[in-house]
Amino acid sequence: MSAQQMHSPTAEGVARAAAKIAQLLPRTPLLETEIGGQPIWCKAESLQPVGAFKIRGAWHRLTDLGEAERKAGVVGVSSGNHAQGVAWAAQRLGIPATIVMPVDAPQVKLAATRAMGAEVVLYDRPGGEDRDTLATRLCQERGATLVHAYADPWVIEGQGSTGLEIAEQMAERGLGAPTRIVCPCGGGGLTAGLALACPDAAIVPVEPEGWDDVRLSLERGEIQRVPADAPPTPCDALQTPATWPINFAVLQKRVPFGLFVTPAEVRAAQRFAFDRLHLVIEPGGAAALAAALAGKVDLGGRTVIVLSGGNTDPESFARVLLQQD
Amino acid sequence: MSAQQMHSPTAEGVARAAAKIAQLLPRTPLLETEIGGQPIWCKAESLQPVGAFKIRGAWHRLTDLGEAERKAGVVGVSSGNHAQGVAWAAQRLGIPATIVMPVDAPQVKLAATRAMGAEVVLYDRPGGEDRDTLATRLCQERGATLVHAYADPWVIEGQGSTGLEIAEQMAERGLGAPTRIVCPCGGGGLTAGLALACPDAAIVPVEPEGWDDVRLSLERGEIQRVPADAPPTPCDALQTPATWPINFAVLQKRVPFGLFVTPAEVRAAQRFAFDRLHLVIEPGGAAALAAALAGKVDLGGRTVIVLSGGNTDPESFARVLLQQD
Repeated sequence: MSAQQMHSPTAEGVARAAAKIAQLLPRTPLLETEIGGQPIWCKAESLQPVGAFKIRGAWHRLTDLGEAERKAGVVGVSSGNHAQGVAWAAQRLGIPATIVMPVDAPQVKLAATRAMGAEVVLYDRPGGEDRDTLATRLCQERGATLVHAYADPWVIEGQGSTGLEIAEQMAERGLGAPTRIVCPCGGGGLTAGLALACPDAAIVPVEPEGWDDVRLSLERGEIQRVPADAPPTPCDALQTPATWPINFAVLQKRVPFGLFVTPAEVRAAQRFAFDRLHLVIEPGGAAALAAALAGKVDLGGRTVIVLSGGNTDPESFARVLLQQD
Repeated sequence: MSAQQMHSPTAEGVARAAAKIAQLLPRTPLLETEIGGQPIWCKAESLQPVGAFKIRGAWHRLTDLGEAERKAGVVGVSSGNHAQGVAWAAQRLGIPATIVMPVDAPQVKLAATRAMGAEVVLYDRPGGEDRDTLATRLCQERGATLVHAYADPWVIEGQGSTGLEIAEQMAERGLGAPTRIVCPCGGGGLTAGLALACPDAAIVPVEPEGWDDVRLSLERGEIQRVPADAPPTPCDALQTPATWPINFAVLQKRVPFGLFVTPAEVRAAQRFAFDRLHLVIEPGGAAALAAALAGKVDLGGRTVIVLSGGNTDPESFARVLLQQD
């Protein structure tokens, strides 16, 4: 079954995912800080057990698999965070997991995925077999279930549970619902999930410069691909070639526009998170904060920024701190 | 009124402090990780608004001041974290605050304290007037109230609220009460507070090598001072000359022994927190984790590690990541 033929993700699905996740994972903190005197709230998904929000969608997906599907195992494709999410959930549930990862994925992500017992199959990003094709072939050979990093209704619903937690946390503090949620965007799994979870909030996806296919897709009304000559970006977690129809269908209804940020803006956001929040945020995880700091987002009302992940190599992070890039 | 003449801190005071703090500050996360296969729970006080647990005691203390006392202002003495706690609480309550800080306090701590509107009075650590004498003189001159960093019943009770939050969070997850709580220790404010808050947990204070006056005081049954020729330590937050009777009275009843950690053990803990928890922890804040990682603490049962602060300069943290020290 290809991802396009699956059921559409729903707000009810998000609520069901959130209930399952609440039994397992403590809520990540919603940290208040300010930019230019304007309060903002940062959802620190970098503090999930695998260091990223991806654990949510993976858990929702894998716990819904039947007995036979669990036995046959799962295959994921990921530069690292979805990989760890799937590996973590699979290990807890005793499901064999194979993860297709790019050879240039950060070492910390490769090591962590292997440490959780997953088999890692490397692929070479620029040439060679397309990563989705490779994963589909592995699934056919093994009878395994593909757990796509974003083009999957369970994954979208699971990521959306982030939005329900945010709404709960705002309400508990006597604040109103979020006016807008700004989130890092790769393939659009988290963005679509938030759109379903928080129908009254503006959802603002932020991509890396040159990898802003979702922004262009929204602008042009049809799915655009990242060009083959896209520039390098520090945001490995957001290097997705294109969004998929299952995501785009949700985005088109709810998300009027997207934004992009430069590598320098991302580094400034990583330093801000270090200084003000004492958090280690990976480049891709800092994209939404970068847009807010760069003045690209209206911060009026109640703006929530998703800090989506914290898996970065110490050497890279030290360079960011020393402003050597 | 000197700190010794004050009322003794009590468990009831801790509960009252916790109730006030819960109205203002979201709970900091209790993050599960493992050391050598043994689960441990890390209380991330580095995620408090001022980057350290010190905000608790300061809030409890300042909110209990009367109208006239508030008007006359407060004076704090601190290498930086208590300074920020007092400055933060004072700013919220409209109380003038003066903080006595060492000239060699980390720049981030000096800047943050000033940014919160406090007047900073610098003193030169090795020679010159003793910092407590200087603070007492300022109080007399201004009619202000001294808010000692640890020798103060409100401060002890406020810091103890950390322990009640830990117990609550463990209970919510269906875990038993903590078997032991390992905490960084300077003057013994947090340690005494935890001892009052969690009467059934073993409390294990951890100090920097050469600054282990609390450990020695417990061993010898009377308060010991750090010698004048104590070695340098990266743990600026734990550089206190001696504990005070108000703290020691609590510690002697409840804390059988203390531990110390070397600078290398502290750096290893900072890297562990970076890799596994995606947290920025300052050297002093990592002392308890350092002891656990170095095999100095029995981790059986349910061990909670307090990560007490995250205020560190980017250059120092980069050196830790690059293993250059």
